[in-house]
Amino acid sequence: MKITVLRLGHRIGRDKRITAHVALVARAMGCSAIIYSGQRDKNLEESIKRVIEQWGGPFEIKYTEDWKKNIKNFKGTKAHLTVYGMPFQKNITKIRKSKKNLLVIVGGEKVPPEVYQAADLNLSITSQPHSEVAAMAIFLHEYFKGKELSKKFKKAKLKVIPQERGKLVKKL
Amino acid sequence: MKITVLRLGHRIGRDKRITAHVALVARAMGCSAIIYSGQRDKNLEESIKRVIEQWGGPFEIKYTEDWKKNIKNFKGTKAHLTVYGMPFQKNITKIRKSKKNLLVIVGGEKVPPEVYQAADLNLSITSQPHSEVAAMAIFLHEYFKGKELSKKFKKAKLKVIPQERGKLVKKL
Repeated sequence: MKITVLRLGHRIGRDKRITAHVALVARAMGCSAIIYSGQRDKNLEESIKRVIEQWGGPFEIKYTEDWKKNIKNFKGTKAHLTVYGMPFQKNITKIRKSKKNLLVIVGGEKVPPEVYQAADLNLSITSQPHSEVAAMAIFLHEYFKGKELSKKFKKAKLKVIPQERGKLVKKL
Repeated sequence: MKITVLRLGHRIGRDKRITAHVALVARAMGCSAIIYSGQRDKNLEESIKRVIEQWGGPFEIKYTEDWKKNIKNFKGTKAHLTVYGMPFQKNITKIRKSKKNLLVIVGGEKVPPEVYQAADLNLSITSQPHSEVAAMAIFLHEYFKGKELSKKFKKAKLKVIPQERGKLVKKL
C-alpha cells in the first residue's frame, strides 16, 4: 500500500513555502511521493531532494503538467481534502481497511470543480478554513493511527537524537 | 483551560502564509489566541480578523515586541514544539490531565537557545524535519483527542454544510 500526495496549482511566489511544507509532511508522515502541478519550481524540487539525501527516504518529488491524467490513471482510492467535504473521521477506518493505494489530493485556494468530481471522496478535516498542511497531517496521522510518528528512514545521513533541552543531531 | 499559541520570529516576506496557516489552525483547532513576534504584519492581522468575523470565534491575534516576557509571565505549561525535542506522544496525556493553561510555542527556522531553556517541555512531532503547521495540528488533535474536529464557533456569519461533491456555504 502506497500513498501519493497530489498538490494542485503551485505558484512559485505565493506557495513556495506552503508546498515545501506539504512535501515535507508527506515524506515525514509515511507517503511515497508528492506530485505537484501549477508552476514548475526547480528550487522547491532541489530543496526537497536535499532533505531526502540528508534525512533519508524513500520519497520522491515529481512535477506534472497534466494533473487530470494523474487523477484519472491512478489505481486506488482518490481522496480530495477540502473544507467543503464530508467529515474524514467517518471515512478513515474504511479507507485504511481497504488497503488500496491512496492518492491524497490537496489544492491551493482555487480548486477546479472537476477535482470534486474526479475524486472518490471529498473529505474535510474540520469544516473550518485552515491549512492544507494541517489537514494532510491529521489525515495521515489518523490513517496510520500514530505509527507514522516513529517511522524509520533509509539511507539517512542525519538523525535527531531527542533531547529535553537543546539540539543533538547524529551523523550516520 | 485555555491554549495560546506563541509564534516566534515572523518575517513578512517569507513567513506570511505559514504564519497565517499557524493562526488559522490555532483557531480551527480550539486555541483561544495567537501571539506572534518578529515583524509586525498588519495585513496578516487583518486577514485573521476577517476570518474570525466571518467564521466565528472567540479567537484573538496579538503582536508582541517582547516574546521573552510572554513566556516568562505565562501561568501554565509552556510546550515548545521542535524537531529536536522529546516525543510528544509520551507527554500528551500528562499535559492534558494537568488541566493547566497551555502555551504552545512554535518557531520559524532559527529559534534562539533561550526558548529551549524557558519552555517547560521541548516536544517533537516526529524527529524529522517537516512543518510547524503540521506539528501544531497533530499536537492539538492529540490534546483534544479528536473533539476539536467538531468544535462550534460563536457569532459566525458563515458555516460549511459538508457535501459529498461540490461546495455549500450557509449564511447564518
